[in-house]
Amino acid sequence: MLKPEILDPQGQAVQRALPRLGFDGISDVRQGKRFELEVDGPVDEAALARIHELAETFLANTVIEDFTVKVESGDTAEAVK
Amino acid sequence: MLKPEILDPQGQAVQRALPRLGFDGISDVRQGKRFELEVDGPVDEAALARIHELAETFLANTVIEDFTVKVESGDTAEAVK
Repeated sequence: MLKPEILDPQGQAVQRALPRLGFDGISDVRQGKRFELEVDGPVDEAALARIHELAETFLANTVIEDFTVKVESGDTAEAVK
Repeated sequence: MLKPEILDPQGQAVQRALPRLGFDGISDVRQGKRFELEVDGPVDEAALARIHELAETFLANTVIEDFTVKVESGDTAEAVK
């Protein structure tokens, strides 16, 4: 996701459109990317550290984006940025 | 996220680039979008039903995309598509 201090025009456009479409009560919308990675072998600490490095160096632009890495079922690790 | 039967060229490009960049052992990459919605008031079942409808009708293109709605801490509901 974009860092909180970075403007998100896409999210703002969505947020402004919602009341027009009949959806009230949403005070903020932020839009970001999501990567689902399927990992060969066990998702252990070493694999997670490698995926964290991969997300930091390759998937996310850490100048303007934050990211988190989450493990989901079925040996799928997910990098949200 | 794009449905499993829909081609994801961006994800494939990432997956093919990883070995070149020194990251092995990732068998599949899928790229999708993520929306963080900040909700006024309690995130109860009615609010979640509304957000689900919002995601289905407005945020996701359900012809080619699946989505899930997750509640995170701090009264933030998140729609992943």
